[in-house]
Amino acid sequence: MVKIAVLGYGTVGSGVVEVIGRNCADRLEVKYILDLRDFPGDPYEDRVVHDFNIILNDAEISVVCEVMGGVGAAYQFTKQALEAGKSVCTSNKELVAGHGTELLALAAAHGCHYLFEASVGGGIPLIRTINTSLASERIQAVTGILNGTTNYILSRMEREQADYAMVLKQAQELGYAERNPDADVEGHDACRKIAILSALMTGRKVDPEKIYTEGITGITLADFQFASMRQRKIKLLAMCSVQEDGKLSVLVAPFLLPGDHPLAGVNDVFNGVLITGNTLGDVMFHGRGAGKLPTASAVVADVLDCAGSQGRPVPGGWSDKEVEYAAEAETDRRFFVRARLSARREVEAAFPGGSAFGVGEIPSCEGEFGYFTAVMKEKNFEERYRKLGDAVLNRIRLA
Amino acid sequence: MVKIAVLGYGTVGSGVVEVIGRNCADRLEVKYILDLRDFPGDPYEDRVVHDFNIILNDAEISVVCEVMGGVGAAYQFTKQALEAGKSVCTSNKELVAGHGTELLALAAAHGCHYLFEASVGGGIPLIRTINTSLASERIQAVTGILNGTTNYILSRMEREQADYAMVLKQAQELGYAERNPDADVEGHDACRKIAILSALMTGRKVDPEKIYTEGITGITLADFQFASMRQRKIKLLAMCSVQEDGKLSVLVAPFLLPGDHPLAGVNDVFNGVLITGNTLGDVMFHGRGAGKLPTASAVVADVLDCAGSQGRPVPGGWSDKEVEYAAEAETDRRFFVRARLSARREVEAAFPGGSAFGVGEIPSCEGEFGYFTAVMKEKNFEERYRKLGDAVLNRIRLA
Repeated sequence: MVKIAVLGYGTVGSGVVEVIGRNCADRLEVKYILDLRDFPGDPYEDRVVHDFNIILNDAEISVVCEVMGGVGAAYQFTKQALEAGKSVCTSNKELVAGHGTELLALAAAHGCHYLFEASVGGGIPLIRTINTSLASERIQAVTGILNGTTNYILSRMEREQADYAMVLKQAQELGYAERNPDADVEGHDACRKIAILSALMTGRKVDPEKIYTEGITGITLADFQFASMRQRKIKLLAMCSVQEDGKLSVLVAPFLLPGDHPLAGVNDVFNGVLITGNTLGDVMFHGRGAGKLPTASAVVADVLDCAGSQGRPVPGGWSDKEVEYAAEAETDRRFFVRARLSARREVEAAFPGGSAFGVGEIPSCEGEFGYFTAVMKEKNFEERYRKLGDAVLNRIRLA
Repeated sequence: MVKIAVLGYGTVGSGVVEVIGRNCADRLEVKYILDLRDFPGDPYEDRVVHDFNIILNDAEISVVCEVMGGVGAAYQFTKQALEAGKSVCTSNKELVAGHGTELLALAAAHGCHYLFEASVGGGIPLIRTINTSLASERIQAVTGILNGTTNYILSRMEREQADYAMVLKQAQELGYAERNPDADVEGHDACRKIAILSALMTGRKVDPEKIYTEGITGITLADFQFASMRQRKIKLLAMCSVQEDGKLSVLVAPFLLPGDHPLAGVNDVFNGVLITGNTLGDVMFHGRGAGKLPTASAVVADVLDCAGSQGRPVPGGWSDKEVEYAAEAETDRRFFVRARLSARREVEAAFPGGSAFGVGEIPSCEGEFGYFTAVMKEKNFEERYRKLGDAVLNRIRLA
């Protein structure tokens, strides 16, 4: 029986305790739950402690689940646990993306593990899959819908032909979006996740601060209306790929996807991830990317991996050498532009070789039209787009 | 550097050699290739041997890839290798489904591994995922499109409104179906695969001979035409689920799927698998279920797992205690029936509470109609269906 401690008895923490109780009571025992609060009447109230040192000093504890979130106490406790040779399993993507390099090295130095399956894609098995099942592959690209909140908002905007602000408000009321939704809607959450996946893919450190990140706050109902005229969906994609020169291209941004794109059917709070290997081709994973029990299930799978490792290294991780980033400005892409009909000639002149559509076909968008550009470099597009000023209303990349 | 031997230099065997050469030359060395033939001019011709004993007696060989297929020599060589303490990685689903119980026990007894990621779903990481990432779950059900050949045939019949016989012939010409296509089209291949997955899911032996298996040879264009009137696809599903009484329900059969079913979008030679966990909910995997390099990639991932295991057991496998099977006859289902319009009254009387559709709406099916039954037990359905004799033309289960 492996004895563990759970740091944080919130949503994920109580999920971890529940998953162990339901599925792994024969293999794992929750000896401590660290929380600032007491939980009178809770079946586990006798396990609750307020002092991390009790856990740190208990030689019986070999694995700690850090499900507190944040990068303050969570960071300190994780460091201390690893230094004491206790493995740490976490769902804390902010900590992994921000300090994973240091924490992985610390774990290796102390013969224990720092595992974070739950930090990306909730219960979808992604990280262990990249580290083990795809160990025989050169992974060339990862493209994912990695944030359930924004996917829920975009799905509802499309399905109900509703405004961003209205859908966000309802998502907040339903608990699908936080009161301060910035981390989700501005793309930061997806950015941390793709930073983790691209570091695993390349074996090198990836700094989330260096990833071009654009959220969904600028997406309007009109954009959906034009997109659907061309059988396209709008999704917030996080994507990374290794270029021929070995540099990493990585960004988070909304994209217009063809309706038959494998990720086009990933709706609502679901996540989907497409991994492209050099001999495997594409393989796709689809499931609940968040939620108490799916996330907890992934944390507990990591705990079982630690328990079974018997001191042997668990594959995965990355070095402290930072990846080289490709310049987004040099990337070739096509763009969707929504513009004023009165400026059609200027738009067509600015982006030659593209195609206009939707002229006069959407009653609520009278006086506007849609335009798909030809392939061009990001920097050239942005420069010309900026010059068009008020003539253009929005632009979204095409996938 | 781990030294390995490859048994069989056919499609998968040459793929294994290629994947190692391209992606793992720093970790793995192919020391021997066993084949009856010689390969003059092949870059690996000097590794080719004809006598398995050379491999068996070479203490440097710790891992053997059995990619010969069949259950004759492949079975003997696998047993001998495991008895000599050499791990075996295979794509041979027939051998795993038929003799896996014995071979897993043999591996355990000799401190080595018998791994078979490539035996189900080609390059889609399924088996290791069930054994590790989902180790914290009680897996309740697995539903999959596990045979690429039949999925290709069904996809083309629907898309091109073509006859089964014509599409099969073209699939054979293209190499997507074998000259003797029975193993695929009669469902035996999918049966072996679901036997393997259900054994892993339950931890118990599952005999493929005891799995109700129905192929696609009876599916006609008319069935597709009626199905599409109700926005349904026809797919050959392999499915297993653990019932409340602990018994295993398992079968292979064509099903009519709603268009929004997660597996409805899995087309052509692709495979898709939906796994339902008790706390995770549904997670879906989608990718190339066959093919030289995807299959080889999965074999090589197993080899890397063996190489990294350092004598520690790799999770997975099942005991020699056989699962208890639920009686298919007692299963509750709904059915699609295609019948002669002249017998509409008898059909409606035989299956009360259902709904007729498509009457006179499909020009090429004049004189026929479609019918969806209410929920009923398989045995009751079959009895009444049989009694209807010539009045009914086909029946397919509804998912």
